[in-house]
Amino acid sequence: MSIAQAQSRAEDRDIAAEMAALGADARAAAQALAASSAESRRGALRAAAATLRAGEAAILEANALDMAAARESGLSGALLDRLALDPGRIEAMASGVEEVAALEDPLGRLLGEWERPNGLRIRRVSVPIGVIGIIYESRPNVTADAGALCLMSGNAAILRGGSESWHSSRAIAGALRAGLAESGLPEGCIQLVPTTDRAAVGLLLTMDEAIDMIVPRGGRSLIERVLAESRIPVMAHLDGNCHVYVHAAADPEKARDVTYNAKMRRTGICGAAETLLVDAAAEDLLPAILEPLFEAGCEVRGDVRTRALDSRVVPASEADWGTEYLDAIISVGVVDGLDTAIAHVNTHGSHHTDSIITEDAAAAERFMEGVDSGIVLHNASTQFADGGEFGMGAEIGISTGKLHARGPVGVEQLTTYKYKVYGNGQVRP
Amino acid sequence: MSIAQAQSRAEDRDIAAEMAALGADARAAAQALAASSAESRRGALRAAAATLRAGEAAILEANALDMAAARESGLSGALLDRLALDPGRIEAMASGVEEVAALEDPLGRLLGEWERPNGLRIRRVSVPIGVIGIIYESRPNVTADAGALCLMSGNAAILRGGSESWHSSRAIAGALRAGLAESGLPEGCIQLVPTTDRAAVGLLLTMDEAIDMIVPRGGRSLIERVLAESRIPVMAHLDGNCHVYVHAAADPEKARDVTYNAKMRRTGICGAAETLLVDAAAEDLLPAILEPLFEAGCEVRGDVRTRALDSRVVPASEADWGTEYLDAIISVGVVDGLDTAIAHVNTHGSHHTDSIITEDAAAAERFMEGVDSGIVLHNASTQFADGGEFGMGAEIGISTGKLHARGPVGVEQLTTYKYKVYGNGQVRP
Repeated sequence: MSIAQAQSRAEDRDIAAEMAALGADARAAAQALAASSAESRRGALRAAAATLRAGEAAILEANALDMAAARESGLSGALLDRLALDPGRIEAMASGVEEVAALEDPLGRLLGEWERPNGLRIRRVSVPIGVIGIIYESRPNVTADAGALCLMSGNAAILRGGSESWHSSRAIAGALRAGLAESGLPEGCIQLVPTTDRAAVGLLLTMDEAIDMIVPRGGRSLIERVLAESRIPVMAHLDGNCHVYVHAAADPEKARDVTYNAKMRRTGICGAAETLLVDAAAEDLLPAILEPLFEAGCEVRGDVRTRALDSRVVPASEADWGTEYLDAIISVGVVDGLDTAIAHVNTHGSHHTDSIITEDAAAAERFMEGVDSGIVLHNASTQFADGGEFGMGAEIGISTGKLHARGPVGVEQLTTYKYKVYGNGQVRP
Repeated sequence: MSIAQAQSRAEDRDIAAEMAALGADARAAAQALAASSAESRRGALRAAAATLRAGEAAILEANALDMAAARESGLSGALLDRLALDPGRIEAMASGVEEVAALEDPLGRLLGEWERPNGLRIRRVSVPIGVIGIIYESRPNVTADAGALCLMSGNAAILRGGSESWHSSRAIAGALRAGLAESGLPEGCIQLVPTTDRAAVGLLLTMDEAIDMIVPRGGRSLIERVLAESRIPVMAHLDGNCHVYVHAAADPEKARDVTYNAKMRRTGICGAAETLLVDAAAEDLLPAILEPLFEAGCEVRGDVRTRALDSRVVPASEADWGTEYLDAIISVGVVDGLDTAIAHVNTHGSHHTDSIITEDAAAAERFMEGVDSGIVLHNASTQFADGGEFGMGAEIGISTGKLHARGPVGVEQLTTYKYKVYGNGQVRP
């Protein structure tokens, strides 16, 4: 049990009542947000950025408590790095909030308009979703990023950070709320679940009257728990098992450079390539593609045909084709033609992001039509799978589901729509 | 236990294996559909309409079995009417399938296109969702309606009809599949769960690898079971607790006629009004609004102020404001101003369809902005909440959820999108 958990239990609180109050405040704040102007949401975000900067000392102090507890409990170096804040990271959070404030208003967009023979005029207009619950792990900056994206899209946010980042997240949320209070928007727009008790997550996932959507951000076990328990629709990111397919008509340099970038630029992100498929007709390109990977220390796990080309290739098992390594490892297979490649990607992939390298535009189009993934690329690195790279500004994550939003989720994807129907006394016959 | 259930149990089948096979066939069919042209989907639907007509005798024979079993088990008149088929209803199904075939192709629509500074060209294009599971109750025509809508939108359908309509649904699905076989599309595009064993529904709701979306069509208990058990995203229709609000600046005739139509045109549909709110400033319009309702035999349950106006008004309890009667009953309340009306609708309503009657355009806009419902109307009957009335053609239902689709769900709402990214060797810095 962490210090924070012990504290919250020691207080012997009625967590269900606290969560219900949180939900009611969020619903009321969502009403206010739905009626708010873009200028007031932008003003609130700028004020929140200012209070974040002004609160630097308090946030660093809170973060020091989290870091001390994390070191004591033996957290790994990578996790400690995720948790750590410094003045540069706080400034990055504040300017991130300002960047969200500068985005185009996603609300009130006219998505469609038509008139019926009976004279009814129908307009489909973008509106906020309502209340969004965000459940995340150790990165305290998610508090500011997710809070800002929700606010700009007119949604109230209920944030539930990890227990490791409890003090940091609370300090950040406090600073954001001080900004909201100054700007006149209700503080209920951004709320942090006031306990690290795991029971609070269970409650959150069943508050379907108060919360319209859940966004889990973290490892697979968190996301699977949320998907299994939630009675509320979930926008989730599962695996990013991304492919590069080098087609028969591939340009050799593009094949080599895109594969290298897709795998090695950053190996730990969801858009990193995990499998390389090379067409049998392009097999002679394979040694030149693999060479820079070996040089960079990447482990190559290959099928029989790949292993025949280079003795440094170790055998790939059947499980390798479905594995998201998130590391300097790549599985490599030789395939007979485009259709086999498409079938391989659809069978073993995770419907996230896949790329074809070819100079044959028709083959590229067939691959992009046939592969059932949120993002399909032609002659470009899978590492472009990112809201910023798509020009959306900040993103709350990448959705691997098919409903509502697919791919990067920015402020536009955090909206829904309503139909406004204008009549003059029409009744239905 | 119904005859059909007894039969399926007697066969001692491995239902889990059968369901898995169904899922695999649907996934393969979905791949074929995603690559199909609109012309081939239209051709398959026209062929299916023809085989439905040609199969009239067999369908009626199967329906007679269901009707006999239903009478034996003492089904009510209304349920018997839902179940009954005759040549007219079969012709209506066939022409309904043809109407779906005539809809605009919802696939391949360019939803957005832009270029990034690095030269990447991004296109957002509509694609099918994949495999849709539809769980319905006694109306056998859903087999044809839902099957056709899924097929036109490029989705494979797994249909699970009620046990009462088992023989009818099987005969209809058989006719549709004969049409598919003629047209060259895989029969796996439209499949009927081959058992009425309730365990099959439980299996269906956990087949998240094979099925992308579940659409329940039926009563509240079915929908609640599906929402509680499903591991797959659900597009559901919950309550239709719709409101008419007569504003201070309402036109008296529109107020009377729209209220009457919204309540009494058909009382059993989800778009029927269940509550009338009258602004205190328009209270003098109330007697003329209520008179035709009383004449038509409608029960009026009112608050204190409404009861003071007419002795035929019976008291409304607190529960009345949240009740979807689906009957000739209406709850009536007098409210002080627009904001009170909006708050009432958002608190007690079901976010389905609500209408304001007023000659004041600014007040109408405030109501339509403030009410958090999928459909908001100005001077028009709530009974227009219907895909056909919206000009979408057929609908699979009306979604009361906020994600993916809100309001009527036609072929366009049965699609998702993918991003196609066109490069020339770009790598991410």
